[in-house]
Amino acid sequence: MEKKILLSEKEIPENWYNIMADMPNKPLPPLHPVTKKPVVPEDLQPLFPMELIKQEVSTEKYIPIPEEVRDIYKIWRPSPLIRAYGFEKLLDTPAKIYYKYEGVSPAGSHKPNTAIAQAYYNKKEGIKRLTTETGAGQWGTALSIACQMLGLECEVYMVKISYNQKPYRKILMNTFGAKVFASPSKNTEAGRKILTMDPENSGSLGLAISEAVERAVMRDDTKYALGSVLNHVLLHQTVIGLEAIKQFEIAGDMPDMVIAPIGGGSNFGGIVFPFLRLNLEEGKNIRFIAVEPASCPKLTRGEFRYDFGDTFGMTPLIPMYTLGHNFNPSPIHAGGLRYHGAGAIISQLLRDKLIEAQAINQLECFDAGLKFAQSEGILPAPESTHGIAQVVREAEKCKMEGKSKTILFNLSGHGNFDMSSYESYLSGNMVDYEVSSEEIRKSLHEIDSLQA
Amino acid sequence: MEKKILLSEKEIPENWYNIMADMPNKPLPPLHPVTKKPVVPEDLQPLFPMELIKQEVSTEKYIPIPEEVRDIYKIWRPSPLIRAYGFEKLLDTPAKIYYKYEGVSPAGSHKPNTAIAQAYYNKKEGIKRLTTETGAGQWGTALSIACQMLGLECEVYMVKISYNQKPYRKILMNTFGAKVFASPSKNTEAGRKILTMDPENSGSLGLAISEAVERAVMRDDTKYALGSVLNHVLLHQTVIGLEAIKQFEIAGDMPDMVIAPIGGGSNFGGIVFPFLRLNLEEGKNIRFIAVEPASCPKLTRGEFRYDFGDTFGMTPLIPMYTLGHNFNPSPIHAGGLRYHGAGAIISQLLRDKLIEAQAINQLECFDAGLKFAQSEGILPAPESTHGIAQVVREAEKCKMEGKSKTILFNLSGHGNFDMSSYESYLSGNMVDYEVSSEEIRKSLHEIDSLQA
Repeated sequence: MEKKILLSEKEIPENWYNIMADMPNKPLPPLHPVTKKPVVPEDLQPLFPMELIKQEVSTEKYIPIPEEVRDIYKIWRPSPLIRAYGFEKLLDTPAKIYYKYEGVSPAGSHKPNTAIAQAYYNKKEGIKRLTTETGAGQWGTALSIACQMLGLECEVYMVKISYNQKPYRKILMNTFGAKVFASPSKNTEAGRKILTMDPENSGSLGLAISEAVERAVMRDDTKYALGSVLNHVLLHQTVIGLEAIKQFEIAGDMPDMVIAPIGGGSNFGGIVFPFLRLNLEEGKNIRFIAVEPASCPKLTRGEFRYDFGDTFGMTPLIPMYTLGHNFNPSPIHAGGLRYHGAGAIISQLLRDKLIEAQAINQLECFDAGLKFAQSEGILPAPESTHGIAQVVREAEKCKMEGKSKTILFNLSGHGNFDMSSYESYLSGNMVDYEVSSEEIRKSLHEIDSLQA
Repeated sequence: MEKKILLSEKEIPENWYNIMADMPNKPLPPLHPVTKKPVVPEDLQPLFPMELIKQEVSTEKYIPIPEEVRDIYKIWRPSPLIRAYGFEKLLDTPAKIYYKYEGVSPAGSHKPNTAIAQAYYNKKEGIKRLTTETGAGQWGTALSIACQMLGLECEVYMVKISYNQKPYRKILMNTFGAKVFASPSKNTEAGRKILTMDPENSGSLGLAISEAVERAVMRDDTKYALGSVLNHVLLHQTVIGLEAIKQFEIAGDMPDMVIAPIGGGSNFGGIVFPFLRLNLEEGKNIRFIAVEPASCPKLTRGEFRYDFGDTFGMTPLIPMYTLGHNFNPSPIHAGGLRYHGAGAIISQLLRDKLIEAQAINQLECFDAGLKFAQSEGILPAPESTHGIAQVVREAEKCKMEGKSKTILFNLSGHGNFDMSSYESYLSGNMVDYEVSSEEIRKSLHEIDSLQA
């Protein structure tokens, strides 16, 4: 059999799959941060174009992908499904391991799947400019490229500590025409306020969100874009799983389990939802495993609560597994997984035991990532190594039990811009971080008053 | 039509194409550096395995690609041929522009096409370890990966100034198990000699070659590998052009011209030679344009002479267009093109006017590279931008003349590890360098005594 299972551009899905249509229990509604009443579309209008707001609340099963979006997808889609023969051999496992490789996109991750769509709908509604925040830089890169291609301006608020530590990420965004500001910046009231109190403040994702939102709300021709968590973002990512199902049909195989890392839920939801439909509708029995960092264990040690999406409490209250929006994750290298909560859909699915969760420490993840790179030739992003570590665990279990299972994982991105992480690992300087139960309890206690 | 023209793994070529078989005039023989008599296979045995030495002098038209090598090629080959619709639109040209994208390889460039083959033949002849030099790091990365996959050790001598300026390249090689030493090092007599005289010496490619060669020659289980210039290296790269011809057949099109950057000649030869066969054998009239940096103009302002491949005069004398082996190229960002000579085959083809050459300054190249990135979503390596700049010139000519030509160029690699170059360009700090005729004359005068 061929190593890479490729599809032609004609086979790029024509619709995104909306799992809201098939969930046995729909997520609870998001609540207005002040009134604590369910959010209505008008509440979101200063931030998002109407078409995305409609998608956010839609229960239509399939939502058409506009032709213009499919055209841009053709730059890198369909992405390959690859059989990891080399990795299987290295692990000496009877398991069959496949990965869907999203690192082939211009941004090197799955993020453009939604960035292109979001830029498209904004453009269509006459918007001239998008603002966003970025931590490690994956999302900011994707939105920069999307805006470039759709002819929009892009303003990125990058957490100052990352801005200083990862100058190449900033340059990459500049290359694609985006304006990148270290957050806190002097462009916003929120930023100026912080800088007055603390001129050396190194920023946080929460603050960067506040700045990006403020810059969007203050101008009529400007809206805001988010790279994960929200329903419409996960919806756009379902092209990953939809393609993978076609590719498994070509391979004459079907996964026994699907594994993906989880930050806000976008790469996990993207690959998992279309396969989960097969469980819900066709009686299949595929396992779905979300892998989070042990130092940011929202799914395995957090609680299901209403919580804010940001640190400053400006977003709607979302029903989610959370560690509390003030939880401060340890400085692990997988910056994209350092998020306190999971999206509402993911959280509901976990509540209903339709998906599972695992927490893994970063040393185990980088060990797995390095083995993968050495046998498959692709250096995975730190985020992606979390999925790979779980694959290693499952492959070893197969070996012990003498069983051959078919494992699919989402290789959400490459690590070409994360070499400092590999340096840290190879030099022996990388450490694991403990999170005490006390710390989590305290952080969760702080959001008690938010419950509806 | 589809944007990407893909081939299945079955269509990876079964043979490399050896243009030596079809050249109207064969290259002059390389000469022994001391005796100045034509090199015999035994002279090369301390450095290369016998199979590669045979390939170096072969005039067989097709040389079979071993099954094991084709198996590893499957990780990224066949590489896509992509129609640059976005770039065409941005340039507003009637030209049809296609690019063969070699950046999909594990190393991010075309270099693994030969690295894998070289590691394979060495392994087969019982060699345990390969040594090599690297400047910018593309070749060192490719050989590290190849050695990792074939189970060989790899020792890379990296020019000290690059070692210090590009730590991420070093880490990438470490990730793939290679030992990387800053050159000059204390591992070799050559290195120790230099360090004694000048402890702060920042190294050169010439010295790094000397160190790598010394380390290979001193051990029976160790040989040396080179990433360009030599016939067998260019031979291995012909998979690029062979695939591209099949892809053009699928597209129902054929290039009027093929454009590629030139350093030692490996990415140029790789894409051009199979198309050149169509001119030689089938009476086609395709143009082939090698693009060099204006600051290292061996093809456009150098002379055809016998010269050493390295600065220290340890290699055989090669008949080539050269600026003299002591020519010191300006510090342009396309490190892979800062080489004083072109391989013997390329040089002979230029002598016979079967190919053309152009020299372009780096500011024009980066301007073209940025336009390409913004319209096609792939950030090109600085080396690759040289080809793109020529494409822009040809596309503009088409526009002026109202003619639609079909242009193919080799996108030899991505620029993910070259962000400092883009920073320099975007910040306005990048400059062009002049080379005076006096400088070239002086450098060529120094090699007068080498002529046979």
